[in-house]
Amino acid sequence: MAQRYVRVQNLEGKIYYGLLQLSLNVQVLDAPPWLQGQPTDLVLAPDSYQILSPCAPSKIIAVGKNYADHAAEMGTPVPSEPLIFLKPPTSIIATDANIKYPIQSHRVDYEGELALVIGDRACDCTPEEAQTKIWGYTIANDVTARDLQQKDGQWTRAKGFDTFCPLGPWIVRELNPGARLQTFINDEPNPVQSAGIDQMVFPPDVLVSYISKVMTLMPGDVVLTGTPLGIGPLHIGDRIRIEIEGIGRLENTIVAR
Amino acid sequence: MAQRYVRVQNLEGKIYYGLLQLSLNVQVLDAPPWLQGQPTDLVLAPDSYQILSPCAPSKIIAVGKNYADHAAEMGTPVPSEPLIFLKPPTSIIATDANIKYPIQSHRVDYEGELALVIGDRACDCTPEEAQTKIWGYTIANDVTARDLQQKDGQWTRAKGFDTFCPLGPWIVRELNPGARLQTFINDEPNPVQSAGIDQMVFPPDVLVSYISKVMTLMPGDVVLTGTPLGIGPLHIGDRIRIEIEGIGRLENTIVAR
Repeated sequence: MAQRYVRVQNLEGKIYYGLLQLSLNVQVLDAPPWLQGQPTDLVLAPDSYQILSPCAPSKIIAVGKNYADHAAEMGTPVPSEPLIFLKPPTSIIATDANIKYPIQSHRVDYEGELALVIGDRACDCTPEEAQTKIWGYTIANDVTARDLQQKDGQWTRAKGFDTFCPLGPWIVRELNPGARLQTFINDEPNPVQSAGIDQMVFPPDVLVSYISKVMTLMPGDVVLTGTPLGIGPLHIGDRIRIEIEGIGRLENTIVAR
Repeated sequence: MAQRYVRVQNLEGKIYYGLLQLSLNVQVLDAPPWLQGQPTDLVLAPDSYQILSPCAPSKIIAVGKNYADHAAEMGTPVPSEPLIFLKPPTSIIATDANIKYPIQSHRVDYEGELALVIGDRACDCTPEEAQTKIWGYTIANDVTARDLQQKDGQWTRAKGFDTFCPLGPWIVRELNPGARLQTFINDEPNPVQSAGIDQMVFPPDVLVSYISKVMTLMPGDVVLTGTPLGIGPLHIGDRIRIEIEGIGRLENTIVAR
């Protein structure tokens, strides 16, 4: 199994980056791994930590309509260049944390996505340079209040609520280019979303290059790469699970605010 | 003159919050003032520091079409609720720093705005509670690539370029409710924008309340309150100056990227 890079909080609330061992012990690093964090002697036993989102980005840049079949289901064409938007850092939650259903919305959707974690400052990069800035991969749920997205025009409110960016459970450094992304609701055996990440319109290196020509990406920043066909609503009490082959599963429950 | 709260960098690159004295010495604080920073014995002479943006927000929330006469000049109605969007932290520059004209755009506009600095975590606040979360006031330029704003639909790219959020020069704690905002280009004696900030459609307490019901505001976060009538283009070599009575002036030069 690939090395899994986590961020955790111990019982005193202290936050560490670390390596998740098969025993579920966490070997603590002395800095974020993309800032050359090295293993320390500190090891946290499974009952002595809580898992957090695997990074704490200064910004989250997301991409709209980056799978042709999802653009079609939204009744819109595939954009000629990546369509970017921002989610606030306060929207991030870890795997197993709760998504809070806002009282302002009556239609909250899941959107399973591959997330890129930036390792290095990236400004005005070619796709080749951009590829070297991608430190690793994790999973995100770009939760969206679909009714407010349509009402506002700008997507900031609809996609910016607290808890609307589940991220995790951990980061891996390598990914099979054809890895499958699947989204499951509750105990349904059939996925509601299922696509190869190689079906993206603009692949990761092109996205990071494009974004880096607008805004400088910082170490630990996150890029959400868009959702495939099959978006749909969540209801209070639902359990939503997004899996990407070679990474793992990101799982969250919807609760009333 | 009101107390002016600054953030500065000394010649070794160390960053401090401080009080700007009439002598232009900076009396250093031991923490951001909204986190109860207290004066220390350290005083920086005018030639020993560079002024930075007066805070380093975890997010910048901006509001569109919040003056009726500006909404009209954009050919759009005043929204029935505040229309919010995000600018990335990497867009911030200090007063006197350069705005870089992106090669992707042929029409870059200034937008002079009052900026609110949040002092306290704000989540789900009434307007009355929200007012107590506003620690102070500064000036912002919501620089916008107007052509890309129209092309993309989402405003993130158009408003998110590096250097597209001049912020400063400092923070004051109190503001006359009818204070005038004026924008000047180069040596033109007549302002291109001139409005009382009391002409806002949604005043500061309503904006902060509204935003706090979507995303939790953190200490040091910034809210841009919208621009009045008179937006227009910037050209390479232009000097743009935004003044708000009781705060000061924010001044930046446009350069080729």
